[in-house]
Amino acid sequence: MTPLAVSMGDPAGIGPEVIAKAWERRTTVPIPPFVVIGDGRAIEAVWPGPIARVSGVEDVERAFADALPVLTVEAAGAIRPGVPDADGARSALASLEAAVGLVRSGAARALVTGPVSKAQLYGAGFTHPGQTEFVAERCGVAARNAVMMLAGPDLRVVPLTVHIPLSHAPRQLTVELILTKARVTARGLQRNFGVDRPRLAFAGLNPHAGEGGALGREELEVIAPAIAQLQAEGIDARGPFAADTLFHARARADYDAALCPTHDQALIPIKTLHFDEGVNITLGLPIVRTSPDHGTAFGIAGQDRAEPGATIAAIRMAAAAAERRAGAVCR
Amino acid sequence: MTPLAVSMGDPAGIGPEVIAKAWERRTTVPIPPFVVIGDGRAIEAVWPGPIARVSGVEDVERAFADALPVLTVEAAGAIRPGVPDADGARSALASLEAAVGLVRSGAARALVTGPVSKAQLYGAGFTHPGQTEFVAERCGVAARNAVMMLAGPDLRVVPLTVHIPLSHAPRQLTVELILTKARVTARGLQRNFGVDRPRLAFAGLNPHAGEGGALGREELEVIAPAIAQLQAEGIDARGPFAADTLFHARARADYDAALCPTHDQALIPIKTLHFDEGVNITLGLPIVRTSPDHGTAFGIAGQDRAEPGATIAAIRMAAAAAERRAGAVCR
Repeated sequence: MTPLAVSMGDPAGIGPEVIAKAWERRTTVPIPPFVVIGDGRAIEAVWPGPIARVSGVEDVERAFADALPVLTVEAAGAIRPGVPDADGARSALASLEAAVGLVRSGAARALVTGPVSKAQLYGAGFTHPGQTEFVAERCGVAARNAVMMLAGPDLRVVPLTVHIPLSHAPRQLTVELILTKARVTARGLQRNFGVDRPRLAFAGLNPHAGEGGALGREELEVIAPAIAQLQAEGIDARGPFAADTLFHARARADYDAALCPTHDQALIPIKTLHFDEGVNITLGLPIVRTSPDHGTAFGIAGQDRAEPGATIAAIRMAAAAAERRAGAVCR
Repeated sequence: MTPLAVSMGDPAGIGPEVIAKAWERRTTVPIPPFVVIGDGRAIEAVWPGPIARVSGVEDVERAFADALPVLTVEAAGAIRPGVPDADGARSALASLEAAVGLVRSGAARALVTGPVSKAQLYGAGFTHPGQTEFVAERCGVAARNAVMMLAGPDLRVVPLTVHIPLSHAPRQLTVELILTKARVTARGLQRNFGVDRPRLAFAGLNPHAGEGGALGREELEVIAPAIAQLQAEGIDARGPFAADTLFHARARADYDAALCPTHDQALIPIKTLHFDEGVNITLGLPIVRTSPDHGTAFGIAGQDRAEPGATIAAIRMAAAAAERRAGAVCR
């Protein structure tokens, strides 16, 4: 079976540890063969298990049962868990680049990216806002058409605005933005999750979804018109609903993804419910890309405290999405 | 034992039903004696159980074991569940006023308010934003010093801004507002919940709490200075933290209340975790006042579908708070 490619992320973060721990769990949880792209020394520094340095993806499946396969992208200098440096950031970027290439070429069937530090990457000359935009560019997709979804066992959310000051969110929320994100989300639910007719629930921007205009007009002037347009296109779009009543168990049963005007409206419920198993999946790309929904956590790197749950979930979700795209639906 | 006073709320809403169902549960859950203030016909229209129309609070405790005690505040005209009208709204207001009077005079020991419709109240000439502000005025407390807290078994939250358009929240969030709300919250946790040294966790306004200024400056210019001032006053204030990572189980263990700049940042997590048992408690009043954290739900009134969980929680929380204030700590 074609393996998945897992980029290590920053070698000084918890990426090496959670990836190795994910491999360890392969005997208790079904985990498809994958290969780590990065410097094996970063794993050896934090984990005592067996590593197989492979020379190509064709060796991964055979090696996977007995050792963690690593395709080496060497880092310059020493690797110290919890102590990030520019060499490590450059190595994280090289790992990401190599992993994307493997998936784009078909040598690997899906991409899982380990956590990187944006501050470290910027210091090393990285000019993209984050890994998502880098991957999108390498796939020939405009960044605005790559949609970040956070997915857990009971909830999937899409923030319509992301890393901007809250005061900018009202004016960044346009009909065009909503249409673009919603179309990509609907298509992404079909391709990656096998949802035949995706139900999209929209949260309002304002408290109580604006209460008919009394608490803000963006629902009437922006969100509702966008929903009407989506419905005219045959997309099952609903709302806008008051954000605070959209995420309890009964409400969640009525949609396949919730689209929220602000970052926190989307990320608060997913992290409240699924803190240790949240997956970030990029919709709108020609390849499957997921990542665990956490950062480098330099503060606990190398202390054997990091949990691999989100990485395992990211690997399994990527494999399932790749199988669906290949036509072999696995539910 | 001095009873609690429960105002019925809008007689056409689910208030009568959930209050009656709360009384029914008294044999399985410890529920202190309470008296409903309102028109008994609204209860009879939706519930077949026994009602005792009492002439004063002194009759409540004896009646409570065998029938639901009601102190009559008559509504004009017919009462039709699910069909609100101005007579019903006036009756809801009269019930509230009578209930507040009973608690203010000491005849009842705490106030629980049933759900009202603001639209209906405004139509009937009500000039306060909501019940909270009305109760505050009757207690001689400025509305800005009455703080809304939402409380469930695992989480307590205070929204620092409430029913305003989201675009107004950044400028309404001032150091003075935060100081006022935080001081009332800290004192309220001591008086009503018996938390000796309250730990207050502040969420940031912006994504990732502003990332050091890159995603907004309110954390640096408003929230952090307010926290520093509170700390100087001896209040255990912490943060600002990224709102999305503040509400999972491990994070919740580190504070007694989370104070959030926007309505949805506070209400999303509490309603995601505690949709059927959330209680609204007003801090900063000379009396104890709670209410179930839901509305009139006219759409399901009279259909025997309303759940009394939040009303039971509101009654029990009010009783516990009243006992703590009286010096008889019950944990």
